[in-house]
Amino acid sequence: MIPFGDRLHDAVERAGNPCVVGLDPHLALLPEEFAAARDPEAPRRERARAIGDFLCGIIDAAAGKVPAVKPQSAFFEVFGADGVAEFERVVAASKDAGLLVIGDVKRGDIGSTAAAYAQAFLRGIEGQDPRTLCDSITVNPYLGTDSVAPIIDECKGTGGGMYVLVRTSNPSSAEFQALPTGAAGAETAPLADRVAAAVDHWGQDLRGASGWSSVGAVVGATHPSELARLRRLMPNTPLLLPGYGAQGAGAADIVGGFQSGLQGALVNSSRGILFAGKQQPEKHWKDAAAGAMDAMAAELRAALLG
Amino acid sequence: MIPFGDRLHDAVERAGNPCVVGLDPHLALLPEEFAAARDPEAPRRERARAIGDFLCGIIDAAAGKVPAVKPQSAFFEVFGADGVAEFERVVAASKDAGLLVIGDVKRGDIGSTAAAYAQAFLRGIEGQDPRTLCDSITVNPYLGTDSVAPIIDECKGTGGGMYVLVRTSNPSSAEFQALPTGAAGAETAPLADRVAAAVDHWGQDLRGASGWSSVGAVVGATHPSELARLRRLMPNTPLLLPGYGAQGAGAADIVGGFQSGLQGALVNSSRGILFAGKQQPEKHWKDAAAGAMDAMAAELRAALLG
Repeated sequence: MIPFGDRLHDAVERAGNPCVVGLDPHLALLPEEFAAARDPEAPRRERARAIGDFLCGIIDAAAGKVPAVKPQSAFFEVFGADGVAEFERVVAASKDAGLLVIGDVKRGDIGSTAAAYAQAFLRGIEGQDPRTLCDSITVNPYLGTDSVAPIIDECKGTGGGMYVLVRTSNPSSAEFQALPTGAAGAETAPLADRVAAAVDHWGQDLRGASGWSSVGAVVGATHPSELARLRRLMPNTPLLLPGYGAQGAGAADIVGGFQSGLQGALVNSSRGILFAGKQQPEKHWKDAAAGAMDAMAAELRAALLG
Repeated sequence: MIPFGDRLHDAVERAGNPCVVGLDPHLALLPEEFAAARDPEAPRRERARAIGDFLCGIIDAAAGKVPAVKPQSAFFEVFGADGVAEFERVVAASKDAGLLVIGDVKRGDIGSTAAAYAQAFLRGIEGQDPRTLCDSITVNPYLGTDSVAPIIDECKGTGGGMYVLVRTSNPSSAEFQALPTGAAGAETAPLADRVAAAVDHWGQDLRGASGWSSVGAVVGATHPSELARLRRLMPNTPLLLPGYGAQGAGAADIVGGFQSGLQGALVNSSRGILFAGKQQPEKHWKDAAAGAMDAMAAELRAALLG
């Protein structure tokens, strides 16, 4: 059982780039071929299946090109149990394609409940097809150490990983995450830095042979100056950087998140890849997505390897 | 369309108590009758169905006794799509029984993703059976205002509600939630107080005829002194108080969360009610659960009215 931090390291080396394709199937943007997903008259199962079919096409384009995909649970949950069945299918298709799967579920709850989430996404029940399980999940830190500990335990047992939200990419993220914290009179630090220190600590026990921990952190590429500071606070922590592309960050903004060459971070793009065909009507949507992956990989390689 | 804050007010008046039954089906504690849920050889659908069957029995016992139930999503998600199908069935059974449903999902994500979660639990897709939708959901504030705004919009459109995590009941909650925050040299306040101020603000537009907002807050009953302070910071905010019973808080601890008589807060008990039969083997599990609800209601009424 190879720990997530090491599997991630190897997957990036193999792919030759640190790109993650975010599987966020916005209904309004799906190619016409999958219009059933938007059809209010279609049965729920069919609508969900159209989303899964589209994403399986994207996964097919991503195989061998990028190290990982990141399905966004919310867009599946819109279709209830039928959507979750498609989430499982998309995870299995990604595994079959040799891609690491980061389940973007942003769960966070008290002890026994956090253990149930960890089981749901990382271990599964007895006899469950391991292809339907994520390699890593995103986790919200607001509830503190005892809400993260059961997930860490599950990572130890399964070789799974987690990415803890530290500084998110959205405009309002500063509201709490950048609040100065500290006892009156003492030196202050933004809340995100306290969370980063906790993440560094949580990850110590989960460092693999590559030196990277299986406990990662989410830091928005939209905050380049903070990215470099947070990288220093979490030297063994793999970062996940959302915000590239549609959310405004470019290749120069992500450099501070890396440590040596292509290692240290994954950069996520969702809409910019999934819906690249919208800007290139002359191309098939799948070719447009593949082209967008190649362009992103080249851009990041140029920025990181010079 | 009556806003959640008003529906909650009326439901508490009707039931004559502020109890919520937390539907957290810990596998190990399920009565022998539902042992299929624990059977590693049983198909996943059957295991999930056993959990749903048990909870439908609890819902039957709760009907007319308490104003609300709070299904915990994690325990359903362990069984993937089959578990989520049971979550939908349990929500519908609760609605049919006249109970308000607080979906304990603790979601929190950036704008368009938060909108998808709000749709998933509060609005549904076109043609979806409204009985499968929650009246309110729990929400994590770590990502700030723009992560909550789409859920607020959905509450305005649907009459739904939300409970934002402010100060949770678990031991580690102090780690970040009690951190002193504020600019260097200025007066500090715990992070939870900043979140409470935001919750008060977020809820202003959603105050109903009863005066209560549809934007509520989660504050652990395990922190009685903070409860009174947070109550003052959020005068129109319905509170949801976990931590009663199995987690250690008693009736005296919850009084500070209330405002007049039975109004102002809901008190949650999960294991203490669901698995009351474990301590009373002479009773049927359903009668034991009903008895535990009656005892909790009487205890809270005595503390609040008497």
